[in-house]
Amino acid sequence: MSEFDPASIRALVFDVFGTVVDWRGSIIREGEAMSAAKGLTVDWHGFADAWRQGYQPAMARAMRGEIAWGNVDTLHRGILDEVRPRFGLGGLSEPEVEQLNRVWHRLIPWPDVLEGLQRLKTRFVISTLSNGNISLLVDMAKYAGLPWDCVLSAELFGKYKPDPAVYQGAAQLLGVERDALLMVAAHPSDLVAAQRAGLRAAYVSRPLEWGLGGYREPLGDAAFDLIASDFVELAAKLGA
Amino acid sequence: MSEFDPASIRALVFDVFGTVVDWRGSIIREGEAMSAAKGLTVDWHGFADAWRQGYQPAMARAMRGEIAWGNVDTLHRGILDEVRPRFGLGGLSEPEVEQLNRVWHRLIPWPDVLEGLQRLKTRFVISTLSNGNISLLVDMAKYAGLPWDCVLSAELFGKYKPDPAVYQGAAQLLGVERDALLMVAAHPSDLVAAQRAGLRAAYVSRPLEWGLGGYREPLGDAAFDLIASDFVELAAKLGA
Repeated sequence: MSEFDPASIRALVFDVFGTVVDWRGSIIREGEAMSAAKGLTVDWHGFADAWRQGYQPAMARAMRGEIAWGNVDTLHRGILDEVRPRFGLGGLSEPEVEQLNRVWHRLIPWPDVLEGLQRLKTRFVISTLSNGNISLLVDMAKYAGLPWDCVLSAELFGKYKPDPAVYQGAAQLLGVERDALLMVAAHPSDLVAAQRAGLRAAYVSRPLEWGLGGYREPLGDAAFDLIASDFVELAAKLGA
Repeated sequence: MSEFDPASIRALVFDVFGTVVDWRGSIIREGEAMSAAKGLTVDWHGFADAWRQGYQPAMARAMRGEIAWGNVDTLHRGILDEVRPRFGLGGLSEPEVEQLNRVWHRLIPWPDVLEGLQRLKTRFVISTLSNGNISLLVDMAKYAGLPWDCVLSAELFGKYKPDPAVYQGAAQLLGVERDALLMVAAHPSDLVAAQRAGLRAAYVSRPLEWGLGGYREPLGDAAFDLIASDFVELAAKLGA
């Protein structure tokens, strides 16, 4: 791939869970409020990790056709029902479970996100490109004030990232050449797949995604077009 | 269909050309600037009408499979190349034609639109639901400051309105029941199709869409759930 020139970029697409929003901190915060309201004692840190750890395997099963392709709300609900008995949440009512499942619609952005996105929006088209479903991403944007120009999801293509159809479909819908589209993510595997599909890739580190001292996906020998410590630095590096 | 209760509505989807933006006035304005810059004498009113009049027939041919399904940029370009020689625009260069074709990405909203949408957005999810392609709608929103929560297009479904798949697909992506989704349009035919597909319908009159004394699609005996003279009145009638 040729040398990277920020002036060649016309649009940015963002991974969301972990890159834009702090899913773990948000789940723990809502969980602790539930504990206080209902007098429950729950290891919300462990619960958040277990719920999220079920996500990749469930998505892989859906991609292999072993379970019906469902949107991420449905996947989250299936995993939630599997893990919640282990955390003392087996006795929740159906409305309580459904309310908890929709915490993914109410996730909180990392502190740099709003300023960074506002700056980037002045110069580029900015869009989600998440495996999360459209309605989840729309609710999250309204809840958090995320100023997307467009909300794109793997749901539109009937595939999940890292399938190349998702990255290439985003470029087509946005009407830009693939190498004028910059994928932004905190996960090297997402970025490597984007690059293989012809996109450019910007890595933003989110060292606290899995909590202090928690899991971090190794960078390996991947060569990204840009690396930034947060969205404000990303905006600066892109001249926005 | 049961009586209409505004409290049952969770999201609004908007027709765009004519309902949100003044395509005719925008084309005339850009055309007159082109005339001044290039010393051309062109009947821009007639040109705008001729270009737009080619739209429904071109879309109908695409829906019948007589021409390949293309996005609206492609349809617009085909019609433009047909009509421009009649208006003294046969000698434009390729970049000039392409720049003119993209005037649809730069259309100007009616005067009530920004205030109305801002109010509606505080209470509802608001989205486009246009036959215009995603990149066109995204460019238009950035250009005009339209505060959509989501940009949906017939392009996502490989069909054009009034195909029911477009209306029903929008409800599914937004995660709302069909009768909790309100289609807003200045064109009765669009609204009747939305209602047949199970949506609710709000008619907003745009008497100047085809110019003073110009064509107005007859209301016929359609019974819409709401009627408003502009988006501000629509917001007030919906309690936003």
